[in-house]
Amino acid sequence: MKARVQVMLKNGVLDPQGEAVRHALGSLGFDGVEGVRQGKVIEIDLAETDADAARTSVTAMCEKLLANTVIESYEIEID
Amino acid sequence: MKARVQVMLKNGVLDPQGEAVRHALGSLGFDGVEGVRQGKVIEIDLAETDADAARTSVTAMCEKLLANTVIESYEIEID
Repeated sequence: MKARVQVMLKNGVLDPQGEAVRHALGSLGFDGVEGVRQGKVIEIDLAETDADAARTSVTAMCEKLLANTVIESYEIEID
Repeated sequence: MKARVQVMLKNGVLDPQGEAVRHALGSLGFDGVEGVRQGKVIEIDLAETDADAARTSVTAMCEKLLANTVIESYEIEID
């Protein structure tokens, strides 16, 4: 199965990378950009074939390694 | 409108970051991880209210700034 994890900084946590992108877009002449947040996406190929077991496993990966749950939230999609 | 852009390295382009995550998951005891690719996700708040115009604008942002189209591909979702 394939899992896709999106890890974003939680609301309220300063995102200097997103802020830099917002400034750069403004400098390039893109008006009307009100905010930018940047996060990461991790695509994982799993040998597991059961969707529920895959989700449980990927949740454990997020908690242990992929996300810093103090400042980041994550979303998991299983295909 | 909100736009979400996912930027991933194209297939065939070496992804050392994803490879590092795969090794780390193996070390933590997660078996059955066959491959990991890591990319970035950029959420953009736009003043634009027309979905087609927003998509055109975000495509231009990707081509000019957000993705290096030589080695990266991008996907745009507009909400």
